[in-house]
Amino acid sequence: MPDVKTLAQNARAAAEVLAVTGADAKNKALRAVADALRAQEAEILAENAKDVAAGRAAGLTESLLDRLTLTPARIEGMASGVLQVAALPDPIGQVDGMVKRPNGLLIGKRRVPLGLVGLIYEARPNVTVDAAVLCLKAGNAVLLRGGKEAIRSNTALANLMRRALAAAGLPADAVCFVEDTSRDSANAMMNLTGLLDVLIPRGGAGLIRSVVQNARVPVIETGVGICHIYVDEAADLDMAAKILYNAKTSRPSVCNAAECVLVARPVAEAFLPRAKALLDQKHVEWRGCPETRAILGGTVKEAAPEDYDTEFGDYILACRVVSGLYEATAHIARHGSGHSEAVITDNYFTAQRFLDRVDAAAVYINASTRFTDGEEFGLGAEIGISTQKMHARGPMGLHELTTIKYVIYGEGQIRA
Amino acid sequence: MPDVKTLAQNARAAAEVLAVTGADAKNKALRAVADALRAQEAEILAENAKDVAAGRAAGLTESLLDRLTLTPARIEGMASGVLQVAALPDPIGQVDGMVKRPNGLLIGKRRVPLGLVGLIYEARPNVTVDAAVLCLKAGNAVLLRGGKEAIRSNTALANLMRRALAAAGLPADAVCFVEDTSRDSANAMMNLTGLLDVLIPRGGAGLIRSVVQNARVPVIETGVGICHIYVDEAADLDMAAKILYNAKTSRPSVCNAAECVLVARPVAEAFLPRAKALLDQKHVEWRGCPETRAILGGTVKEAAPEDYDTEFGDYILACRVVSGLYEATAHIARHGSGHSEAVITDNYFTAQRFLDRVDAAAVYINASTRFTDGEEFGLGAEIGISTQKMHARGPMGLHELTTIKYVIYGEGQIRA
Repeated sequence: MPDVKTLAQNARAAAEVLAVTGADAKNKALRAVADALRAQEAEILAENAKDVAAGRAAGLTESLLDRLTLTPARIEGMASGVLQVAALPDPIGQVDGMVKRPNGLLIGKRRVPLGLVGLIYEARPNVTVDAAVLCLKAGNAVLLRGGKEAIRSNTALANLMRRALAAAGLPADAVCFVEDTSRDSANAMMNLTGLLDVLIPRGGAGLIRSVVQNARVPVIETGVGICHIYVDEAADLDMAAKILYNAKTSRPSVCNAAECVLVARPVAEAFLPRAKALLDQKHVEWRGCPETRAILGGTVKEAAPEDYDTEFGDYILACRVVSGLYEATAHIARHGSGHSEAVITDNYFTAQRFLDRVDAAAVYINASTRFTDGEEFGLGAEIGISTQKMHARGPMGLHELTTIKYVIYGEGQIRA
Repeated sequence: MPDVKTLAQNARAAAEVLAVTGADAKNKALRAVADALRAQEAEILAENAKDVAAGRAAGLTESLLDRLTLTPARIEGMASGVLQVAALPDPIGQVDGMVKRPNGLLIGKRRVPLGLVGLIYEARPNVTVDAAVLCLKAGNAVLLRGGKEAIRSNTALANLMRRALAAAGLPADAVCFVEDTSRDSANAMMNLTGLLDVLIPRGGAGLIRSVVQNARVPVIETGVGICHIYVDEAADLDMAAKILYNAKTSRPSVCNAAECVLVARPVAEAFLPRAKALLDQKHVEWRGCPETRAILGGTVKEAAPEDYDTEFGDYILACRVVSGLYEATAHIARHGSGHSEAVITDNYFTAQRFLDRVDAAAVYINASTRFTDGEEFGLGAEIGISTQKMHARGPMGLHELTTIKYVIYGEGQIRA
């Protein structure tokens, strides 16, 4: 089993080849990956069954087991996802903003691959394929290090992709997979200075914090979402209740789900009982400030201070009554994670002020935070959702897996 | 003296105000800074004289003393530089790529400030002003931590800017200055997780390496330049010699100066003596491979392996004879720092292959590497030159001091 550094060096060598590989060759390789997924469904399912059995024996929760489990439908979903990526426009090679300088130099910014992308992720084996094909399409090699729960499935998927690439004439090392799932291998990834151009952690808050704190390579922080819905005094309360219901209950485990509702005092008495009646359909647990409890009654738990800083990922909702827009945006500035924030209002100026003041990857007027997603935003696919400000913010698609280089055409110019 | 964390918190509060400050108010404050620089020339020179005297007593080299010294002309240069930044278009607020999605959501990317920018820099006091005004123009607060050699000059300049901002109605804390020049304060800057949106080191290789290795905040790596000139067999040798002379000798201390010339074997005998005769005018010391020495004679030193990995910053040039384009680009891949690389050739395909294969911030055909610079590239001004791939690459101007947020206009949409 090669060590992490050797794998990274192999992947870098492959990245040099990929950087000068055209769109047709990359798309042909991606279609070969899709074909292989379909052709080798039985082998993938067999390896996945071992992971699931081991996970069950180790006492994984049902929800984790569900994320780990592959089915024929899920494998077909992966294959068709690969074909969708193959069909996207190639981001590489475009030159932006080319200018002729007074001295005759022609200077432009050419879109190029990042180089070698590292990914540390957790239980879902489909990430192995989704992330690798996005990296490939953008001309990058990828170094994958998944979780131990999915090790057999991930190994099978990575090897399948490597064989498909080689058969299509691209270097197999464009996809390198770390079989060691110990903490050592994650630490080794974080210390590949000069080898990894970027490291993306995908998973729970603990993993992400550890990578951000310890990595000595450039990192894109992803995913933690403490998202708010602010129900303004000028809100359409029916629309507000429907959006809150959608944002909280349509899929509580994901990062763009709402964790907290802020309600303007003038409408709190009218809004809260209506919203609670709706969310009761999904047995959402409320944790409220004293005013919330005064309105909704003693069945609502009192919110502890940490409830306003928690990504519940569950049918739990924090609630606070605020004086209005400025108290709402101040609460979001203090407690939000910079992911997705929404205001519900009929008032033009309130809407504009909310857009101006809230510092987050995605700021919504009168819509559910659940739309923060590469496909919903029209990017075609995503490798994660950045909650940092550098390089990428919000859903990261192909464009965010690239960089630029300046290309300069001269005729002998020297600098005075 | 407030500690670094307190300063950062103050600066963040100012950043929230700046983020919603319009272009007119920012430009008025910048003009006030320029006025103050001109009005308080005598006070600045007096503080600078103390720094220079202390530096002389401490045995600083003449070249460091020169970088440290302010003169009336240099202060006027700073003031007119501030006015140039004030005159640049404001990068903030523009919305790119707004699309109407099938569900009616209107989604666009609004250009917004990064927030709080940290800067650790060394001896030149003009960086205090240049960096602060670029950050301000882009709507950011800045936390400055300069070197001990310039502490009195920097303190005077920072306080002057703070007063000018306050007088113009902006928060003084938009510019915060760390008076502690110990290693502790630099370490504290590197650990401002959640407070600094980006940390930019500007200075020598040691400083930059230390920040890249130790920072727990997002970093933009700048400046180290091991730049090559590749003289192809199809080069116009006269043009090649003039470009090499310019790239090596016009200002050897800067990062876009050439450190190494690679010469295609078929033209080595014709090119090397001609180039050496030209560079002899500036007493450039050559360090060559055995073939170089066979051609130029024994007065040329033998290059040690580390000479090909060194940013000399001086009148020293490494030289290697290569078989052609592919050996040249392989040498650059191995020894370059990803800054600026040039090919000199009359051959169309060689030029295109060099542009394709060389992975650097700026890749030149038939021009001097010395042009890698914000003003030369038409950015108006620069805060540094990024040699990393994430977020910014090459000269960083106002645009690179910003990020985006997605703004989404809905009408009650919920996700299915």
